[in-house]
Amino acid sequence: MQHIRVIYPGRTKEGFIKAGISKYLKLLKPYVRIEIVELKPGTGSRQQVIEQESKALLKAAGRPFYLLDREGREFSSEEFTDILRDITEMDFVIGGPFGVTEELKRAALLRISLSRLTFTHELSRLIFFEQLYRAMTIIKGRQYHY
Amino acid sequence: MQHIRVIYPGRTKEGFIKAGISKYLKLLKPYVRIEIVELKPGTGSRQQVIEQESKALLKAAGRPFYLLDREGREFSSEEFTDILRDITEMDFVIGGPFGVTEELKRAALLRISLSRLTFTHELSRLIFFEQLYRAMTIIKGRQYHY
Repeated sequence: MQHIRVIYPGRTKEGFIKAGISKYLKLLKPYVRIEIVELKPGTGSRQQVIEQESKALLKAAGRPFYLLDREGREFSSEEFTDILRDITEMDFVIGGPFGVTEELKRAALLRISLSRLTFTHELSRLIFFEQLYRAMTIIKGRQYHY
Repeated sequence: MQHIRVIYPGRTKEGFIKAGISKYLKLLKPYVRIEIVELKPGTGSRQQVIEQESKALLKAAGRPFYLLDREGREFSSEEFTDILRDITEMDFVIGGPFGVTEELKRAALLRISLSRLTFTHELSRLIFFEQLYRAMTIIKGRQYHY
């Protein structure tokens, strides 16, 4: 079974986002082993938070890792599925509320953009898990459960 | 106060999506009058549903209206905000689970794509309301409340 780690700083706080993520994790269970790694959120000024969190994310991520980044490359759901098709394990990194350093961006194997729109980091998590579930239904040839 | 109508077929069923939409509607209340128009969902085959729903959406929408369409034009949140800045009233149409007809697409003043990714129609509603709230905080110069 494929093993995907999803790494981000801070627990998900917003109730409806937590509920949505739980739903997709449950739906993903038969298809892929998902491990969520919640790192300690940064403290201090905006810049300090970005630097602390990026350093911790880089340390926690195995290489190669994929980074969610609004300015990264955009994919259709089918193209996103192709990324997942042949990997046995992969780390996905999602930045915190203020984003990440250029250093972390450069270290990523691939920067994936969910949209040209700016989402909160928590909404990005939800959308990511939904796309992961959609990709797995395509790979396994199973029906998408609404 | 601006008046925005959001028109779509069928009630929102998924619990976490309903909770998220409620949150953004509450946050939007001081800034804009939002009217949600839930039309009767189509019945029959996939093609019949698409045709019935598209016809009903076209009838319900005032002109000009904006249509959410994955294959439409993509915007950044700032560009999306600019669309909303000067309008006094506007209808946004969001298609149902199977999409809409070419006729409805042609009738739209503008087709707005949230992402190249495919989302469920209910997730699109949630993302749309979040972007509407984000846009309003930018227009009114207010802090975004997480």
